[in-house]
Amino acid sequence: MNMTDCQMCRRWEDEKDLQVIELPYSYVTLNRDQFFPGYTLLFTKDHVTELFHLDRNVRSALMEEVSTVAEALYTIYSPAKINYELLGNMVPHIHWHIVPRFVSEPLWPRPIWAETHEERFLSPEEYFQHTETLRRALS
Amino acid sequence: MNMTDCQMCRRWEDEKDLQVIELPYSYVTLNRDQFFPGYTLLFTKDHVTELFHLDRNVRSALMEEVSTVAEALYTIYSPAKINYELLGNMVPHIHWHIVPRFVSEPLWPRPIWAETHEERFLSPEEYFQHTETLRRALS
Repeated sequence: MNMTDCQMCRRWEDEKDLQVIELPYSYVTLNRDQFFPGYTLLFTKDHVTELFHLDRNVRSALMEEVSTVAEALYTIYSPAKINYELLGNMVPHIHWHIVPRFVSEPLWPRPIWAETHEERFLSPEEYFQHTETLRRALS
Repeated sequence: MNMTDCQMCRRWEDEKDLQVIELPYSYVTLNRDQFFPGYTLLFTKDHVTELFHLDRNVRSALMEEVSTVAEALYTIYSPAKINYELLGNMVPHIHWHIVPRFVSEPLWPRPIWAETHEERFLSPEEYFQHTETLRRALS
């Protein structure tokens, strides 16, 4: 796969309305489907597939970025738990699903993939509000 | 929750036949259900819930352990992808699901939670073979 075939390589530019922040090693965007409120993606700037393909220093710095975003989501949304998932079976470019989880959810305490559901799209104002709140917490 | 109520705090001792290796910050065990061949758990020695509750140095060291186990699984099983998941909605003690994924699987490329399935248990000899192979790769 070259970069032009990888949707994650283009995602930062393709989904400007979901942009949260550019960090040293990753981009952070809100997930368009907000069925799980605060569902955030963090993906590497470079096209890399596995954690163990990164240099140790880069891996550590990337995981600091994941942890910092998770903590910010925890502070903003007050969930019961944060879920962190790096899958990439369909899009093999490191992207973390960082998802606040709430006891009040229909799927709780199961994984977010346990049941299909209608996607929940927000208004442009609502996307801005979520991304801006997270951006401020991370700035 | 105190430690005696947490199944993950007891798991290393409770599932001796699944033990792979003790690392500086974590224990590594094979998952009893081997529907996904090589499905491995890595859990912190301390009862901690979120990545951002750890000190940076411990977090980095823990992620090195996750990455090293993932690379060993990749070498042993030759999967298409490794999946890394830290959920903890039911058992809020950091435990990583590190799962080799194969194109030949019925669930591929969906997440392992996308469909329920019969659990696959191995014979004692087979558990030993899997844990010993991984232990050797990590030693």
